[in-house]
Amino acid sequence: MLLLSCPDQPGVVATVADFVWRNGGNIVHAEQHTDTTDSVFFQRVEFELDGFAFPPERLAAAFAPVAERFAMEVTIRFSDDRPRLAVLASKAPHCLVDLLSRWHAGELAADLALVASNHPDHREICGFFGVPFHEVPVGGDPSAQDLAMRQLLAAERIDLVVLARYMRVLSPEFVEQWPNQIINIHHSFLPAFVGANPYRQAHERGVKIIGATAHFVTAQLDQGPIIDQDVAHITHRDGVAELTRKGRDLEVSVLARALRAQLDHRVLPWGNRTVVFA
Amino acid sequence: MLLLSCPDQPGVVATVADFVWRNGGNIVHAEQHTDTTDSVFFQRVEFELDGFAFPPERLAAAFAPVAERFAMEVTIRFSDDRPRLAVLASKAPHCLVDLLSRWHAGELAADLALVASNHPDHREICGFFGVPFHEVPVGGDPSAQDLAMRQLLAAERIDLVVLARYMRVLSPEFVEQWPNQIINIHHSFLPAFVGANPYRQAHERGVKIIGATAHFVTAQLDQGPIIDQDVAHITHRDGVAELTRKGRDLEVSVLARALRAQLDHRVLPWGNRTVVFA
Amino acid sequence: MLLLSCPDQPGVVATVADFVWRNGGNIVHAEQHTDTTDSVFFQRVEFELDGFAFPPERLAAAFAPVAERFAMEVTIRFSDDRPRLAVLASKAPHCLVDLLSRWHAGELAADLALVASNHPDHREICGFFGVPFHEVPVGGDPSAQDLAMRQLLAAERIDLVVLARYMRVLSPEFVEQWPNQIINIHHSFLPAFVGANPYRQAHERGVKIIGATAHFVTAQLDQGPIIDQDVAHITHRDGVAELTRKGRDLEVSVLARALRAQLDHRVLPWGNRTVVFA
Amino acid sequence: MLLLSCPDQPGVVATVADFVWRNGGNIVHAEQHTDTTDSVFFQRVEFELDGFAFPPERLAAAFAPVAERFAMEVTIRFSDDRPRLAVLASKAPHCLVDLLSRWHAGELAADLALVASNHPDHREICGFFGVPFHEVPVGGDPSAQDLAMRQLLAAERIDLVVLARYMRVLSPEFVEQWPNQIINIHHSFLPAFVGANPYRQAHERGVKIIGATAHFVTAQLDQGPIIDQDVAHITHRDGVAELTRKGRDLEVSVLARALRAQLDHRVLPWGNRTVVFA
Repeated sequence: MLLLSCPDQPGVVATVADFVWRNGGNIVHAEQHTDTTDSVFFQRVEFELDGFAFPPERLAAAFAPVAERFAMEVTIRFSDDRPRLAVLASKAPHCLVDLLSRWHAGELAADLALVASNHPDHREICGFFGVPFHEVPVGGDPSAQDLAMRQLLAAERIDLVVLARYMRVLSPEFVEQWPNQIINIHHSFLPAFVGANPYRQAHERGVKIIGATAHFVTAQLDQGPIIDQDVAHITHRDGVAELTRKGRDLEVSVLARALRAQLDHRVLPWGNRTVVFA
Repeated sequence: MLLLSCPDQPGVVATVADFVWRNGGNIVHAEQHTDTTDSVFFQRVEFELDGFAFPPERLAAAFAPVAERFAMEVTIRFSDDRPRLAVLASKAPHCLVDLLSRWHAGELAADLALVASNHPDHREICGFFGVPFHEVPVGGDPSAQDLAMRQLLAAERIDLVVLARYMRVLSPEFVEQWPNQIINIHHSFLPAFVGANPYRQAHERGVKIIGATAHFVTAQLDQGPIIDQDVAHITHRDGVAELTRKGRDLEVSVLARALRAQLDHRVLPWGNRTVVFA
Repeated sequence: MLLLSCPDQPGVVATVADFVWRNGGNIVHAEQHTDTTDSVFFQRVEFELDGFAFPPERLAAAFAPVAERFAMEVTIRFSDDRPRLAVLASKAPHCLVDLLSRWHAGELAADLALVASNHPDHREICGFFGVPFHEVPVGGDPSAQDLAMRQLLAAERIDLVVLARYMRVLSPEFVEQWPNQIINIHHSFLPAFVGANPYRQAHERGVKIIGATAHFVTAQLDQGPIIDQDVAHITHRDGVAELTRKGRDLEVSVLARALRAQLDHRVLPWGNRTVVFA
Repeated sequence: MLLLSCPDQPGVVATVADFVWRNGGNIVHAEQHTDTTDSVFFQRVEFELDGFAFPPERLAAAFAPVAERFAMEVTIRFSDDRPRLAVLASKAPHCLVDLLSRWHAGELAADLALVASNHPDHREICGFFGVPFHEVPVGGDPSAQDLAMRQLLAAERIDLVVLARYMRVLSPEFVEQWPNQIINIHHSFLPAFVGANPYRQAHERGVKIIGATAHFVTAQLDQGPIIDQDVAHITHRDGVAELTRKGRDLEVSVLARALRAQLDHRVLPWGNRTVVFA
């Protein structure tokens, strides 16, 4: 599978399609998008390699002349690629348990290498699902915890990090180590209700909907590229506790959809936005 | 119909129900809400007056002792009350035409006394539907226009004002003259994207949903009590023009729902929030 | 809490409110509905018993004269009532795991007495959550399995049964033993796609939405009173496998909402319909 | 723009892209779908003709060898194509007025050639929007009315027919004359509640959602390929009149979305299903 972006220019589609076909591949799905504001072209081309002219490991080298000609940024993925995934969670269990359960059911095309937390609470459920659990407590020095977590993830060669209601702000160094590979679920419809206690903020503003937003983490809190969002209707009868309860179901489903899109290689970040192919 | 709020205390429900029943009314619908944060009780009691002990015009006086005993704020409405409604619109026709068309179909329990605008564009369509149209142009002095509009509405004894994409900010004096009787449709999911060009703001932030919010107008721009909100999903393919087009359908439906709730006497503002009974 | 229905007639609301108040209760929430087609009145009255004139166990006897006078069907519930709940599931784990996880998090006001299945698959996960698991295999004689399951539930004094993707049709005797106390999740928007393989039926019809329906089980397959329904949008790209996957999330959320409504005593079945208070 | 379907086979994407590029076109959008059940490939290729090697009218002939080689069914559309559109309506005005208003606002890329009805009611509103109105009354012989309507549409060289709550069943001959060019809005979530009075059927079944479905008309009533569907949540409080009122808003929005998809050349019917590109 080719995921590419390049300056918009004639001939890209034809050249890529020709490359695949000439080498014996069969395109089973292709989607493209042109951002007319920035004149950038995005494409996702999924093709079968049965009968392909050369082995998968030589695909990148073979495609390099095409990429160079059109000044492309290219990512090549194979359908049996399984990124090493780490899930970070604090005390709330709902997103974590949902991900464990989907992973167990075979819904997530990833190797769930570990779960880590600043609290010990989730050790048992991880044990049940056979996923290694690491407690990385905060102790006296927050930056020491941040560093310890980064070192853990690095030591485990983690490709993709999911913050499943992990209530610690990551340091800029942490974020830079996994650019556009850290997905957070924020419990509001961003850009509204940034920061702490969004359900309380929502209740005080008297909104009639609550939301959840899955986004890539950047150095600015809750400002990264949005992958998916959804909302639920609420009424005057819903207090903060009820918003929190209803919001949990939203958080679970939005995070799961965003993670699935990422694992399907359907997400291309571009500046502060994302292209999410269908 | 009684719409009331008072400090939460035992006996309110029983006393009100007893008042209605003892005087020969039949409660066909009742809904109540207790705001536990502020200890305030809200109730909407709808009852039939056939066979009632006294004529409608004496209801208020008869209920006064009950209201006083519980320190109630009470509004009494009759189902054949039809408030005098003014719709203010600027250039965009979609919300205005929808309201005209619903009013014409008998969906709105109001007397549509007039449409007013800072532009002449909607004169013909109002003429077709038989609704008086007033152009109140801005000219050199914005505050003169604001005053002229207020005077027009006052002269026409307007009870309820709907801002159907009216792009002028009302003066504090204007707002105070119709407290919680001016409904605006803002084209974003408030509190996000306050102010001008919310669809452009939404596109720049890269959100995956757009929204519309109907709210009462207060002196603070886009900060008044929210009556109704809704959202639609969008994708990376939607530019500002497409957001604007998709948003129009949201604006139309959210404004119509909010207006209908208000005309059904189901909306009780309370501070910066609203109770909207079903 | 009083849940009642009776022929529609003047005085019910006042008499019930008076009963509660005169005996020292405070109504914290009340909702009512009049079915004008059948002239039936429904009400749910939630009140605090602190300082009530007599102990809870005498409430029924004290209310009996009121009930008799208006020919009411009355159910009395206390907020610390916890029905004994059994969850029946076949092979698919998603609804079961979600219910176990919500119960574990304290979201369900019920005693989860047991999980039973015609397969052994869920023994381990039930063990993890500390819920007794019973395998009731089908073997040669389907009616023997039906009987064994009924006997198990009866022996365990089960009040409420949830069919969490339990793929066996219950016998009429089974259904009659728990009238309006068996909740099923059907994986379509009923009344469309009754019976087996609704996702395949949906794909063949070429619909653009899929749905899930939670309903009480009656002797007619998939015809019982509907408690809750929801849908998700799909496209031509979704094959049967994808519909099945997307549908799982719908089934989970619709079943959880319906069960919560039932445990909150907000559901009143009436013929083939339900009143579900907010 | 090329809209094509053909047996799924390697080389189609590359050959089409090469054809466009070699002749100087620039692909601005392309979307494809492979139906793996039937092994059929669908594609929509939108490209700019500025600097194209030959004039638009020769495109079909030039593409013919490609089409023949892959056994394609091809439709060629140009962005300035505007089909001649007829809207048929009975008494209910909501869908008709919405379409007139969208057309007036420039939202519909079609020439609205006429509105026709079996009743005289809509003559005035059509006059206001400057659209010719034809009354084709039923009189004694229903088949005579059907024939008269067909002759009117044929005489006016109508390409696309929208049934905007037109309550007459079209004859098989009528349907065959505009294959997959007649769009109906049905006021239920098909396949539930086929035929007359779907809101009454919905109320009697006690569903918790109502829906609307836009579909191509075929000889079997309400069985044609579905283009778009949507639903709204309802409660026990909604009687048939309320369902009808809430349903109107659904009908309006679903029909408008389906018509827009058709006018954008994004809909490819295939048997009883449709591919609707984004």
